[in-house]
Amino acid sequence: MKKKMFIGVDIGGTNIKSAFVRNGTIEKRMKLPTKAQSGVTEVIKQIKAAIRPFVADASGVGIGIAGIIDSRTGMVRYSPNLSGWNDITLGQILKQEFRLPVKILNDVNAVCLGEWQYGAAKGYDNVFLFTLGTGVGGAAICEGKPLFGANGFAGEFGHTVIKFNGPPCTCNNYGCLERYVGAKFIVANAKRRMRKGRSSLRRYKKLTPKIIAQEAKKGDKISKEVFSEIGFYVGIGVINIIALFDPDVIVISGGVSRAGRVLFDPVRKTVAKRLLGAQFRNYKIIPAQLGDDAGVIGAVYFASSA
Amino acid sequence: MKKKMFIGVDIGGTNIKSAFVRNGTIEKRMKLPTKAQSGVTEVIKQIKAAIRPFVADASGVGIGIAGIIDSRTGMVRYSPNLSGWNDITLGQILKQEFRLPVKILNDVNAVCLGEWQYGAAKGYDNVFLFTLGTGVGGAAICEGKPLFGANGFAGEFGHTVIKFNGPPCTCNNYGCLERYVGAKFIVANAKRRMRKGRSSLRRYKKLTPKIIAQEAKKGDKISKEVFSEIGFYVGIGVINIIALFDPDVIVISGGVSRAGRVLFDPVRKTVAKRLLGAQFRNYKIIPAQLGDDAGVIGAVYFASSA
Repeated sequence: MKKKMFIGVDIGGTNIKSAFVRNGTIEKRMKLPTKAQSGVTEVIKQIKAAIRPFVADASGVGIGIAGIIDSRTGMVRYSPNLSGWNDITLGQILKQEFRLPVKILNDVNAVCLGEWQYGAAKGYDNVFLFTLGTGVGGAAICEGKPLFGANGFAGEFGHTVIKFNGPPCTCNNYGCLERYVGAKFIVANAKRRMRKGRSSLRRYKKLTPKIIAQEAKKGDKISKEVFSEIGFYVGIGVINIIALFDPDVIVISGGVSRAGRVLFDPVRKTVAKRLLGAQFRNYKIIPAQLGDDAGVIGAVYFASSA
Repeated sequence: MKKKMFIGVDIGGTNIKSAFVRNGTIEKRMKLPTKAQSGVTEVIKQIKAAIRPFVADASGVGIGIAGIIDSRTGMVRYSPNLSGWNDITLGQILKQEFRLPVKILNDVNAVCLGEWQYGAAKGYDNVFLFTLGTGVGGAAICEGKPLFGANGFAGEFGHTVIKFNGPPCTCNNYGCLERYVGAKFIVANAKRRMRKGRSSLRRYKKLTPKIIAQEAKKGDKISKEVFSEIGFYVGIGVINIIALFDPDVIVISGGVSRAGRVLFDPVRKTVAKRLLGAQFRNYKIIPAQLGDDAGVIGAVYFASSA
């Protein structure tokens, strides 16, 4: 890492966040609407606009984006949030525009690199990070190296199966973890329980995992039951992660992870109770530290180390 | 890998296999009873006897052994096949005896290294190998590096959960893969089905997965149904592996893997049908190539590269 100033970009379905980053610290930042519905050309225009103000002093650009990314060629093969993004050579396009090196990677891989270099997983050689939100993504560091895998899709935690005869998932499989703990399934879980008992959740017109977590912390029984069940499912997923990767740390990131102890307690309890060889293992299950900044910081690390 | 001649040892619950290996090729071999029931001292005596004949020309010793192994210190922390083996400093003991470098690793990790360097997974950077037999073990190569994990237990495929509310497993958890596809559960599956219909399996006094596979190949309906169900469960496990590791190849090893197509067909079918993003992925599900020799060859590779 010779050059120290890079531009980090986090392309989401709603907003593009960009930042000027020096040694893992954000010095300036910017946010623009993605305009995902306006088509590929318009989104690329927005990405360029998010990069341009920082270009003068930067040595390169790192970009995190949801989807199937070929980091070697800088190609976005498919992005679930951006309609029409199939085999878009984003790296090439931006390289030509700005005459700077551009590196692109999956957004959750970016978050994982950020937390590994500067956040919750700093100093560890074996890390698994996952995000809990609308979807459930994941990424791993194995023996001190980021794991991308043969096709660049390693870490697809949300579509690991925790019940082979479970309910159908959008991915065509059954009983995927995301089908139990994705944001809308947390809300559906709460609604199902609310039919059977009193709950402070009734005061809200539109439920979100955040509201349910808040009410759980205030003592609402049904909200606590929801997170206890969600935490159990997440714990089963974590057991599979620990069995396979044996990481030093499991970092939980994403909006739902901010629920705090109402989530982490049942996750940790499930793992401690059911994990093979728990007595021989050192592992930690901890929250992410960098919040929404992890993506741009990790994308910059990727660009600066590649 | 400067020095080319090493001794490889594979310590099983019944036999100790040792070999003199040059460039991945076994030149001489030996087999002794483990005498696992006679206590730690007796087993160590057998291990020494299996090494001694090859010592004169060797540059080091590599040992694969089932259990929880601390490869850095050469300590066997726990071995399920050997009673009383808790925190045994096997590496130290053998180093003092033979004045040679000694490296110890988990047996399935040894098999994986062997198949990666000289067998079915040769040339690939991302590999997951698992063994189907009495138990179900696993090991991974990630981005060209063997994955041991924080505590040395990575790859514990048999105790990944495929049904969180499934039947209890010996490990204290529920619905582990091994609980569905371990050898005795394959036999139990066949016996359950035999109660309901005619089967050529009735001719056998004692059923084994091998016999069931043979009868399946000959066309016995119940035997085919057994392997079709077993293959489905293995396929679900493989989906979780591919989702998380995105390997180039998944190698299936161990006695049950010799069932051939009656096993591999339903595994491949399940994965192709249910795997997220199958259209974007290159992966292969293939049988191991080195058979019973993979362990000693892989242990030698470990000793020679460490």
